Amino acid sequence: MTDAREMDDVDANIAPPSLDEDNRLTDEFVRSVSEAVENNDTVLAQELVNPLHNADIADLFELIGEDERAPLAEALGDLVSADVLAEMNDYVREDLIEVLDAGQIADLTEQLDTDDAVAIIEDLEDHEQLAVLAELEPEDRAAIESALTYEEETAGRIMQREFVAVPEHMMVGDLIDYLRKNDDLTTEFWEIYVVDPAYKPVGTCQLSWIMRVPRDIAVADIMKREQTLIPADMDQEEVALRFQKYNLISAAVINDDGRLIGMITVDDILHIVEDEASEDVLLLSGAGEGDINEPIRDSYVARVRWLIANLATALVASFVIWTFGAAIEQMVALAVLMPIVASIGGNAGTQTMAVSVRALAMNELTRSNTRRIIGREFRIALLNGGTIAVLVGIGTGLVFANPLLGIVIAVAMLINIVIAGFAGIFVPVTLDRMDQDPALASSVFVTMITDTMGFLAFLSLAVGSGLVNF
Amino acid sequence: MTDAREMDDVDANIAPPSLDEDNRLTDEFVRSVSEAVENNDTVLAQELVNPLHNADIADLFELIGEDERAPLAEALGDLVSADVLAEMNDYVREDLIEVLDAGQIADLTEQLDTDDAVAIIEDLEDHEQLAVLAELEPEDRAAIESALTYEEETAGRIMQREFVAVPEHMMVGDLIDYLRKNDDLTTEFWEIYVVDPAYKPVGTCQLSWIMRVPRDIAVADIMKREQTLIPADMDQEEVALRFQKYNLISAAVINDDGRLIGMITVDDILHIVEDEASEDVLLLSGAGEGDINEPIRDSYVARVRWLIANLATALVASFVIWTFGAAIEQMVALAVLMPIVASIGGNAGTQTMAVSVRALAMNELTRSNTRRIIGREFRIALLNGGTIAVLVGIGTGLVFANPLLGIVIAVAMLINIVIAGFAGIFVPVTLDRMDQDPALASSVFVTMITDTMGFLAFLSLAVGSGLVNF
Repeated sequence: MTDAREMDDVDANIAPPSLDEDNRLTDEFVRSVSEAVENNDTVLAQELVNPLHNADIADLFELIGEDERAPLAEALGDLVSADVLAEMNDYVREDLIEVLDAGQIADLTEQLDTDDAVAIIEDLEDHEQLAVLAELEPEDRAAIESALTYEEETAGRIMQREFVAVPEHMMVGDLIDYLRKNDDLTTEFWEIYVVDPAYKPVGTCQLSWIMRVPRDIAVADIMKREQTLIPADMDQEEVALRFQKYNLISAAVINDDGRLIGMITVDDILHIVEDEASEDVLLLSGAGEGDINEPIRDSYVARVRWLIANLATALVASFVIWTFGAAIEQMVALAVLMPIVASIGGNAGTQTMAVSVRALAMNELTRSNTRRIIGREFRIALLNGGTIAVLVGIGTGLVFANPLLGIVIAVAMLINIVIAGFAGIFVPVTLDRMDQDPALASSVFVTMITDTMGFLAFLSLAVGSGLVNF
Repeated sequence: MTDAREMDDVDANIAPPSLDEDNRLTDEFVRSVSEAVENNDTVLAQELVNPLHNADIADLFELIGEDERAPLAEALGDLVSADVLAEMNDYVREDLIEVLDAGQIADLTEQLDTDDAVAIIEDLEDHEQLAVLAELEPEDRAAIESALTYEEETAGRIMQREFVAVPEHMMVGDLIDYLRKNDDLTTEFWEIYVVDPAYKPVGTCQLSWIMRVPRDIAVADIMKREQTLIPADMDQEEVALRFQKYNLISAAVINDDGRLIGMITVDDILHIVEDEASEDVLLLSGAGEGDINEPIRDSYVARVRWLIANLATALVASFVIWTFGAAIEQMVALAVLMPIVASIGGNAGTQTMAVSVRALAMNELTRSNTRRIIGREFRIALLNGGTIAVLVGIGTGLVFANPLLGIVIAVAMLINIVIAGFAGIFVPVTLDRMDQDPALASSVFVTMITDTMGFLAFLSLAVGSGLVNF
């Protein structure tokens, strides 16, 4: 059972199948294109790539080596369409676009909807941006310049200015005639917006509803009046949450006066949801943007900052150990065991933190249930801490033939896992209330707390219990 | 600038605004509903909740305490519609449904599309499932029973069986008349499927295309023949990747014979994308499902397993330390410094691992570019390792007035960060090639490698360099 695309490829009379069972380009296929380009066999390269979907052509550029990209683009010629560029990873696209002049870039972007055109133009250097804008048709230039006045990652940037809006009193029949006659309307829309004389949206109408009723029904009678209007300055993550919450297919974007100025469709939101959720994984791990196409220097800067922050927090933990140096000299077992306390505490803290960060991102953790969720995490921490404490305590007591050492590590373990549970929820919630991204900085704080408290609890209990003299 | 929903609430003559600026239910609102229910003031409770969107009513149930949910459901009566249940978190819905009898559940699910009905019924205990199915109308029962024959999280489960399919030779005008006359067709569709006499899909047609052409054009002339067909047994994560890659709004689902049996729409995919990306964060941290509504016992079991696995790997690291006990006894500074080497190595490994896991999940890391990406990570690791090694080496040399100790820790740091980089990409890629979920088990292995290698490199270099006698 394969899909039509894959069958297309089997039909093609060219050697390797282009897609594997996971719908990724096969290594054999990528290599045969590479080789064709290397041998200057433009005809073969185009023949191979021609049956591919635009998204797969974009993937092809991402998969091959950086120095092969410009030759491939040259070999493929017009196959590298505006739509292919729109599908491409930002970094890879920037590389390709660098070799084009402003006129070529302008020609490409004019074939796209505003949202896709803006995505390409916003990444250009300032002087290039101006050059490209100067080459655009006045109407397209105005649309893109206006989009660029909104901040990146807001509704104003991601919306398209091509949409269908009609007055309330219109009849379904007249609407259909209007759509049939106006060739310059966008063809990609799923809902139409009904506006009042001031161009403020008063309702939304799915195309399927329009097609289900006779021509003499007023659009106003079948539209849905309850609608989610998106202010143009709303952050894209917020926009994505509205789409998810209300199961939207498209949404009207309004300006400060409440006038309809654009439309966002769900297919663009799908990428934002993916990106924002990925961002959380990557931020939590301190990997910055985490794009495998990012220039190495950028990745280095993003990650080393985080490692240095981690170094600073590790020093705090080391300082704790240092103050107990005499105790460790007396009993090396303490040095052997202390990483266990810190490591498992860190893991427990990370678990709670990941749960909290995702719940915050999805608007599931609010002031109404914070206290209840803290209580929930506390109880889980007690259960986890109890279990691990018993295991580690008994094991240590037996291996070192020292019951007191077993008790000391068990109690330290329990304390650290409970502290980890609290840290894992308090740190992200506090950052969120301070309007910081909880995914960005939580890890540093939580790890510092669990490392430091782990060593402190274990070593001070060892001293306090009389296990070692200090 | 607010959206229509929020303005509705301001218009309502009831005290607290229901939604805050982030579109979450306010604490004041949640509390006033809670109080109304507690005071048995059903009228007030309903008056408060009535203006809310179904998704917000569902959120309300998630936000209040567990023991308040059944009384709230009772107070709200019919406001807890099938659509509210469909929007609700699985665990919270299960709690509520437990108090209903099979007949009531059947009544509710009959108001939903198959995909939403299945989502409710699949979570019931087996005997309950049978009881509910018995209460359903024969047609609905057949549809749901057939959906249940597919595995959970496959296309067959998440598709709806309500869709519009027409023969190729149909004219646009006849299609519109057909849609107008057939009242029992679904009203929620964005594309129609064109099928051959064997009911195999031959093309897809957006509603907007249909509305843009005269009545005497054949549907076959405007449909898109290149289409993405989804086999019913395809995993939902795969389905979501196709939607993202090809910017789909809906897709036809086919059975083993290639016959059209259902439709998946993008609004359902939005939730899957969010869930699957969240899953990666949560699995990487070992938090299991990480749902804040999950019963505590389930969360405990999911997390403690992971902590025990972490304990096992920590033992390996401890064993390394233990073998160097004599060295530590000679020089306690080693015990003070060794967590720094392990901790930063762990962090560096986690960075690479997060990047690799996401790239694998998004089909960006394939056989074609694995070698190149490993090279990329190696260079980043060298840069990071070099930077941290210099910082830590100089700092240690100065603080302990021991240049050799500085050199030892610097070299150990560099080695561990490079190893961390390799582990961070090799482990997930290997798991992926073994058809395992790289997010699930990568953390354990990577942490074990960075901890163990950190201690081993540092302590053995200390001995090997003659810093301590052993």
